[in-house]
Amino acid sequence: MKNSRIDIDRAVELLRDARHIAVFTHENPDGDAIGSAAGMTAALNASGRKAELFLTAIPPESYRRFVGVAYRTELAPEELIGFDLILQLDTATEKRIAAPYGVKLDDTLPLLAVDHHPDNTEYGRWNLVAESAATSVIALEIAEKLVGTIPVEAATLFLLGIVTDSGGFRFDNTDPACLRAAAGLIELNADYRGIVDAVFFTRSLDRLKFEAELLSDCLDLRCGGKLAIVTIPPALIAKYHIDMSSTEGLVDVFRSIKGVETVAMLYYRNVGLLKVSLRARNPLRPVGPIARSFGGGGHEMAAGCLIENGDPIAVAKNITDLFEGNHK
Amino acid sequence: MKNSRIDIDRAVELLRDARHIAVFTHENPDGDAIGSAAGMTAALNASGRKAELFLTAIPPESYRRFVGVAYRTELAPEELIGFDLILQLDTATEKRIAAPYGVKLDDTLPLLAVDHHPDNTEYGRWNLVAESAATSVIALEIAEKLVGTIPVEAATLFLLGIVTDSGGFRFDNTDPACLRAAAGLIELNADYRGIVDAVFFTRSLDRLKFEAELLSDCLDLRCGGKLAIVTIPPALIAKYHIDMSSTEGLVDVFRSIKGVETVAMLYYRNVGLLKVSLRARNPLRPVGPIARSFGGGGHEMAAGCLIENGDPIAVAKNITDLFEGNHK
Repeated sequence: MKNSRIDIDRAVELLRDARHIAVFTHENPDGDAIGSAAGMTAALNASGRKAELFLTAIPPESYRRFVGVAYRTELAPEELIGFDLILQLDTATEKRIAAPYGVKLDDTLPLLAVDHHPDNTEYGRWNLVAESAATSVIALEIAEKLVGTIPVEAATLFLLGIVTDSGGFRFDNTDPACLRAAAGLIELNADYRGIVDAVFFTRSLDRLKFEAELLSDCLDLRCGGKLAIVTIPPALIAKYHIDMSSTEGLVDVFRSIKGVETVAMLYYRNVGLLKVSLRARNPLRPVGPIARSFGGGGHEMAAGCLIENGDPIAVAKNITDLFEGNHK
Repeated sequence: MKNSRIDIDRAVELLRDARHIAVFTHENPDGDAIGSAAGMTAALNASGRKAELFLTAIPPESYRRFVGVAYRTELAPEELIGFDLILQLDTATEKRIAAPYGVKLDDTLPLLAVDHHPDNTEYGRWNLVAESAATSVIALEIAEKLVGTIPVEAATLFLLGIVTDSGGFRFDNTDPACLRAAAGLIELNADYRGIVDAVFFTRSLDRLKFEAELLSDCLDLRCGGKLAIVTIPPALIAKYHIDMSSTEGLVDVFRSIKGVETVAMLYYRNVGLLKVSLRARNPLRPVGPIARSFGGGGHEMAAGCLIENGDPIAVAKNITDLFEGNHK
């Protein structure tokens, strides 16, 4: 009964048979989490089912106005029995599930997990894990089979998920399927302009000035310009009120410098805890090995590590040595 | 015989009947000019016709490696008779035609113009002007009808045109048709990664530092942060060796600042000739009227003007007054 791998038709069947569905996603929800979860909630409601969205955090400001459906943050244990299905979206591992306050996760829950992360651990009773640029692409396919016409608020939400997870169709995961899904959603009157404007064309002046100072004063190009080391002073983070937990795209600014092959961005996450974000541009010179040498991990092109009592100058020196060793 | 408006099938027929085709595009060719013209040249050659591409300028460095077909810059007048068709791509007006050295344009030329600019003047003997995000989308449709399988170098070139003219699917012209065209081209093995990398993820350090200094030192936010005036000192342009004729996207950096509604970017194009680039964010507050009040023009959301002996301080004051008048 537990941990079965299912295909999309079986997922549709499970949702079709359900009357009252709780929709969960992952912690610190990003655009695809919000998009797939709120979008499926809207689509399920349009199909005549009762679906409720649960989030444990307020959606990021830039996405908030697209949510369009009500969400709850708490769920009493005795209420849980009233749901005949929990739809868990965009969540790779059990640990990352954003369970509403009051819910204890255990194997007895009728959990249907739908996700696109290749490292998904298939923790649900039913698991649909498909290769896709975004969970929202899979959610859209399910929704299309459940309802005749996708409601416009769901279309905008699925499109938000596709646009954010593909980096506006610039990341390596961009594929024909997500481009075609986006085309279809625009035809359903999804608010593409609003999404592009909110996600790519609305940046805080503080963030822009922060980036400008990093480029002017904190960028150290080594090894003939192939290695970019960016050490962010705590004072700069404070000056511009930067929340370092939401700085996606920052390290890519440095990776896009002509000639740069490897980027290492260093900053203190907490006092004494040095965070190193690593990015590679050339698949032949991955950064995974550098991260692992510091006890970290990640992908080969994007990795990172945390170093207790790390000294940025010494760490930068180590990274330079590893980079040069790599180029011999 | 002259100036007839034709549909896509007639354009295909004209190309099908031609044996030796000269392919022209516009001056200072951008990604869509190069993409549609070089792409059609490759596709026509694959269809068994002899097509030759003519350019009057070396393609921009970032696009150069995608050109993939040989091109010529000159054409002797007596050679011209050997061509039974001239395919003119992505060129709105006769004045913008990049005619190869040696060619005098006149009404006797068998010119087939294919374009997507709404202000196209239909200067050709045959004119196919269609609403589309890029001329490359129209060129792709023609090529599909001419050849069984689009050759991979043509696929990459058409995709280059679509990606650049749509701003990587971020500009307002992005539509379902260009997203679907891109999906199909990726399936034909077009080098999407290479294009994205060259166009969006390869930036000169000089350009990035130039932008950083503009943000730090040259940005003047007025009217409660709604009006951004950026005055670029000539010394900064010189310091970072910036070619101001190829700074697409620069003004958008300022338009993307949260709260900014209108951007005016001022710099000297030549000694005494002040160039003003204007961008609007809100369709209710267009910049066309501001540009026209200075004798300039353009679209309502993106306009500009040249002011002889313009004084940046006085012009900024004028623009501020116009902006405030607009908000009363």
